[in-house]
Amino acid sequence: MTTVLTGITTTGTPHLGNYLGAIKPAIEKSKDSTFKSFFFLADLHALIKCWEPERVAQSTKEIAATWLALGLDTDKAVFYRQSDIVEIPELTWLLTCMTSKGLMNRAHAYKAQVADNIEQGESDPDKGITMGLFSYPILMAADILMFNADEVPVGKDQTQHLEMARDIGARFNHHFGTHFVMPKTIVDDKVSVLPGLDGRKMSKSYQNTIPLWLTEKQLRKHIMKIKTNSLEPGEPKDPSDSHVFDIYQAFATQSQVDEMITAYENGIAWGEAKQLLFELINKELAEPREKYNELIINPVIIERELKKGADKARSFAQPFLKRLKEAVGIRPIV
Amino acid sequence: MTTVLTGITTTGTPHLGNYLGAIKPAIEKSKDSTFKSFFFLADLHALIKCWEPERVAQSTKEIAATWLALGLDTDKAVFYRQSDIVEIPELTWLLTCMTSKGLMNRAHAYKAQVADNIEQGESDPDKGITMGLFSYPILMAADILMFNADEVPVGKDQTQHLEMARDIGARFNHHFGTHFVMPKTIVDDKVSVLPGLDGRKMSKSYQNTIPLWLTEKQLRKHIMKIKTNSLEPGEPKDPSDSHVFDIYQAFATQSQVDEMITAYENGIAWGEAKQLLFELINKELAEPREKYNELIINPVIIERELKKGADKARSFAQPFLKRLKEAVGIRPIV
Repeated sequence: MTTVLTGITTTGTPHLGNYLGAIKPAIEKSKDSTFKSFFFLADLHALIKCWEPERVAQSTKEIAATWLALGLDTDKAVFYRQSDIVEIPELTWLLTCMTSKGLMNRAHAYKAQVADNIEQGESDPDKGITMGLFSYPILMAADILMFNADEVPVGKDQTQHLEMARDIGARFNHHFGTHFVMPKTIVDDKVSVLPGLDGRKMSKSYQNTIPLWLTEKQLRKHIMKIKTNSLEPGEPKDPSDSHVFDIYQAFATQSQVDEMITAYENGIAWGEAKQLLFELINKELAEPREKYNELIINPVIIERELKKGADKARSFAQPFLKRLKEAVGIRPIV
Repeated sequence: MTTVLTGITTTGTPHLGNYLGAIKPAIEKSKDSTFKSFFFLADLHALIKCWEPERVAQSTKEIAATWLALGLDTDKAVFYRQSDIVEIPELTWLLTCMTSKGLMNRAHAYKAQVADNIEQGESDPDKGITMGLFSYPILMAADILMFNADEVPVGKDQTQHLEMARDIGARFNHHFGTHFVMPKTIVDDKVSVLPGLDGRKMSKSYQNTIPLWLTEKQLRKHIMKIKTNSLEPGEPKDPSDSHVFDIYQAFATQSQVDEMITAYENGIAWGEAKQLLFELINKELAEPREKYNELIINPVIIERELKKGADKARSFAQPFLKRLKEAVGIRPIV
């Protein structure tokens, strides 16, 4: 059985791009019985960039409710909140002692910040950089090594973190005996990148997102705002040059796509194309939306699910950390 | 009531210098009912420099047994093993997110290592430096802030760490509400510095120590090795130029000191002076030595004491950390 581990940082509100690019395929994959999936709400990571307590708390709730509403099977997958696994910060310290500072110096995220500072003429290249930002690859290594994950699906920008996790884990293994599995990086090049309202990649930082859990009315309103060209109804339209079409395609079956291409050729009005897009997305989200709303008004159910996940995760992490501590010399005196 | 916190790194074997300079006065002070004393075995710190599991485990046992044998009242003081307080690594991460990297760049221990590397012509100034060494002032801050220590007695070389703990704690307080007490640095300038066998300060790194728990026979043998000049018996000797006298003075009452000065003036033989020194020290250590040996063969008693201390420490740390986590946004979903 292959253990697959995925973390979700709890600072934002899920949007359609997250849904299509990450959540939907991950939940799909977790149904495959050859995988044991670990999904965690990375709230300790959230603290690195977000010092807004309400936002961290709110985002944790929304993201947890999202995964549950979309059908994550928590009997099969292990779904937990990172901060509930007290063994993770403990392991982080053990690994901190095994991590060379030079490794962190070379981390992309840190180097990018330093480059920014230099470009802006700062006399201190480390200006505004916290130890959280500098050392979070060690926390990530602990997240991964704690559960001996075989595979970690990541975006291309994250491959270096996986290399670092292997590096740190291998050094520990070398000094204290083989305890950790070397995690494999799984880069999915085919990740669907959904355009946002303005046609650029849908992303919180561009403020062009369609949030996942809008009411029907709000969802329709957002979709109507997607940028189009000024071709009139009746004029043939080019699907390959239409964000409305791109998004439609991401949700539609092949036969629906074919029909839409014909409609474009026949000069469908933008308003009508958007209406069809709205109906398509709304159909897919209607049922989970109800579940989501139920969860949000019954947060105790979310908490119960996360506790269940934490218990499952700790049933592995607790004895494993004990073994790791014993390996480094931290043992009961007997 | 003033809370005083002291950590003891678990990498070495206690020697007479540790006893006189640190352990004895600390235990003495802990009897003062205006203080609430926290003493902890800093095994997480030990991992920074020591990757020898057996040494860490052995040192933890020896140091714990030492403090207990020397009469630390564990009903009054809180005596615990750092790694038993899982809240400490958790708090360390919260503080890591609040610590600017620039602060760590300026830490003396780190800068000294970098200076060494540069002096040795290394092309990488961070060569051989681990993240443990780089970031341990954050762990120290967590040790201190976790128990809202009012006072931390430290050597002069440690005052910077206390400044850092205040700096980090104040930043947390500023962003998330006042949770932490600002710890006061207590530098004891009058710390007795005991000379070792060769007359330099008694220190593990000079290999000139007299271990604390020698058998009578071994203790005598060690004392006989203390360097003296070649003055013959009968020749008057200068107490102010004698390591034997220095050590004698550190253990003796004023009247014993006066007698010894007279004996020096009267030309006491070195062998005899050493014999008197041996008898003096041996008398002080005989009873605790028996207790120490008993503890070492009954380690379960040591473990029980440390568990008791951990329970006491965690009864404070657990609810406090919960409050801190809630302050940063890590909360149950309700």
